[in-house]
Amino acid sequence: MVTIKEVAKEANVAPSTVSRVIADSPRISEKTKRRVKEVMERLGYYPNLQARSLAAKSTRTIGVIMPASAEKAFQNPFFPEVLRGISKHAHAAKYGLYLSTGSTLAEIHEEVVSMVMGRRVDGIILLYSRIKDRTMEYLRESGFPFTVVGRPYKNKNSITYVDNDNVGITKQITEYLISLGHKKIAFVGGSPDFVVTIDRLKGYREALAESGIPYGEQYTITNDEVAGNGKNAVKALLEVENRPTAVVTLDDLLAHEMIGCLESYDIRVPADISIAGFNNLSLSEHSNPPLTSIDIGTFQLGYQATQYLIEKVENPEVEPKGVIIPAKLIERKSCAPIL
Amino acid sequence: MVTIKEVAKEANVAPSTVSRVIADSPRISEKTKRRVKEVMERLGYYPNLQARSLAAKSTRTIGVIMPASAEKAFQNPFFPEVLRGISKHAHAAKYGLYLSTGSTLAEIHEEVVSMVMGRRVDGIILLYSRIKDRTMEYLRESGFPFTVVGRPYKNKNSITYVDNDNVGITKQITEYLISLGHKKIAFVGGSPDFVVTIDRLKGYREALAESGIPYGEQYTITNDEVAGNGKNAVKALLEVENRPTAVVTLDDLLAHEMIGCLESYDIRVPADISIAGFNNLSLSEHSNPPLTSIDIGTFQLGYQATQYLIEKVENPEVEPKGVIIPAKLIERKSCAPIL
Repeated sequence: MVTIKEVAKEANVAPSTVSRVIADSPRISEKTKRRVKEVMERLGYYPNLQARSLAAKSTRTIGVIMPASAEKAFQNPFFPEVLRGISKHAHAAKYGLYLSTGSTLAEIHEEVVSMVMGRRVDGIILLYSRIKDRTMEYLRESGFPFTVVGRPYKNKNSITYVDNDNVGITKQITEYLISLGHKKIAFVGGSPDFVVTIDRLKGYREALAESGIPYGEQYTITNDEVAGNGKNAVKALLEVENRPTAVVTLDDLLAHEMIGCLESYDIRVPADISIAGFNNLSLSEHSNPPLTSIDIGTFQLGYQATQYLIEKVENPEVEPKGVIIPAKLIERKSCAPIL
Repeated sequence: MVTIKEVAKEANVAPSTVSRVIADSPRISEKTKRRVKEVMERLGYYPNLQARSLAAKSTRTIGVIMPASAEKAFQNPFFPEVLRGISKHAHAAKYGLYLSTGSTLAEIHEEVVSMVMGRRVDGIILLYSRIKDRTMEYLRESGFPFTVVGRPYKNKNSITYVDNDNVGITKQITEYLISLGHKKIAFVGGSPDFVVTIDRLKGYREALAESGIPYGEQYTITNDEVAGNGKNAVKALLEVENRPTAVVTLDDLLAHEMIGCLESYDIRVPADISIAGFNNLSLSEHSNPPLTSIDIGTFQLGYQATQYLIEKVENPEVEPKGVIIPAKLIERKSCAPIL
C-alpha cells in the first residue's frame, strides 16, 4: 500500500502538501496539483474516499430524491431534464449524484434518513413538495442541508426552494383558452396531495372567476389514477355531463397520451377539443398536432436547486430563499378558437 | 447518542440480534426485524452507514457511468429509459445509484478510479463501449465487479455484457429499405470510436453486399459532430453527390431532428426521403410522420446489466457472460417505397 509520505517524497513536496492536493486546497498552485496527482496515479495512490469523508464529514455527493420510484419517474421526460440541470451544476462544482430508488413514501423516507444519518451525502434535493411531507419536515428539523424543487406547503421562510409561479401561469393558460371563446374548460391535474396541484387549481379558478365563468366541480379531475394515465383521463372526461371543449392538463406527457386516446374515439384536437400542457417537452414541438404548452424552465429548476444547495453545504450561515423561475406560454396548434 | 445496547434492551432482544437486523440477516424473523426497526426509529438510532460499509466493505450502491456528461446524456431519452431498467432492479435488490457527472474521458476515468479505490460503490455499469477503452481495461485489470451495456471490443470472454445483435438488426433495417426499392441508402452513425457504430456499419454493408448494391463511401457519415446534431447531419447528406433516397440513422432522436430540418429545405419524409431510426422512443409513435424504428429493448438492457452486476457483487465466482437482448423492427410511416 502506497502512503502519502511516499507520494510526497516522489513529488518532492511535504506530506502536508499532498494532503492539501487531495483536499483540493486553493493554497496549492494548479501546477503543483498536477504534478502531485501525476505521481499519485503513477504510484497507484488513491485516498480512501470513504475513510476520508468520514474524517472530513464531506462526501462531495448530492442526494436526489424522486417523487416516486426512479423507475416510474424516468418515464416522464421532466425528470431527465431536471437531472440535466442538476448534473450540470454538480459536475461544475465537482459533486457526484446519489439517486433515490424507493417507490413508496415509507421507502423514500427511509432512504433520506439513511442518507442523513449515514452521512452518505452532503445535502439533498427534493424533487417534489407534498402537503403533509414527513420527509421535508424531518430534513428541516434535523438541520441537514436541503433544497426543494416546488413550493413547501409549510415553513416557506425557513426552507430554500426553487419553483414556478404556478398560480400565475395556470391563470394565464386558462385565460388564453377563455380568449379563444372556451367556457367549458376542464382541469386535469395530479394528486391534490402535491402542492403544485393546489397552486395550479387556484390559478385556474382565479381565471374563471375573473371572467365570470362559474366553476363546475365536475370539470376538475385531480387524482393519481387519472394523472398518470391518458386513457383514464379521457374516460373521466367523456363521462362528464356537458362535455368540456378545452382542457388544461398536468403536463405534456399526459396531454400527448390523451390526444392519442381521443383519436381512437374519433375526437379531433383541436377541432373538437383544445388541449394545453405543461413542461414544453422537446417532443411537443414535433407532435401531431404540435402542443401548446408552458415552458417552466425545467433545466433551470434543477440547476438552481443544486446551486443553492451547494451554497448551503459550503456555507451553513447562508439564509434560506425562495426563487421563482420564469415560465412562458408557447402557443402551437393544439388549441383553437371555439366555433 | 443512542447505542445498540439501548435498542436491544428496549426491544427486549440481544445486542447481536440488533446487529443482525441492521445487516438484514435471513436468520432473524420478519416480525423481530419490524419490532427492532420500530424501536430504532423511536429512539433515533441509525447505524452510521459509511462506518458500517467501511467495515463490511459494502456500500449497497451501484455506480452508473454515462458515455459523456450526464448533462448531455439526459438530452437523449435512451438514457432515462436504460436508467429506468437499472433503477427497477436496483430498487428490488435494495441498492442505490451513484451517477457519474464527468464530461470528458479523463474526468470519467478519474470518477471510476475514485469509485473503485474509494470503495464508494460495490460495482459499476458502463453505459457504452469504446474501441480503446482505458476505463474498461482498468476495471477488468482491477478485478472490480462491472458490467457493460454494449459489446466490449476486446476480452469479450472475460467481461459480462448486455448488448443487441447490432450487426443483425442493422442488416435487417437496411434490407427493409432495399425491399422498398431503395439503392442509394445512407448510414448516419455515431463516432467510429464506439463499438456500436462498428457493428451497425458492418450490418449495413452486409445487407448492401448481399443485394449486390455497391458500397459508396460518401453515404457513410460517422462522426460526433454529425451524430449529435440533426442540422449538421442533414447538411452533410445534402452535400453528397447523387443524393440518397433513404437513411439509416444512429437513433430516433437524430432522426426526428433530421426530419424537422429537412422540412425547412422543403424535403418531405417519406415522399422525398425515407428515414429509419433506432431505440423506438415513445415519441416516435406520435411524431409526424410516425417513425419507423428498431425497438432495442432499452429497459431490458439496463435491467439485465444490473441483475448480472449484482449477481457478480454477491457471488464473485460467477462466470462472465454475454447476453443478447432481442431487437425488433417497428414499421411506421417514415419509410416509403421508391417511386
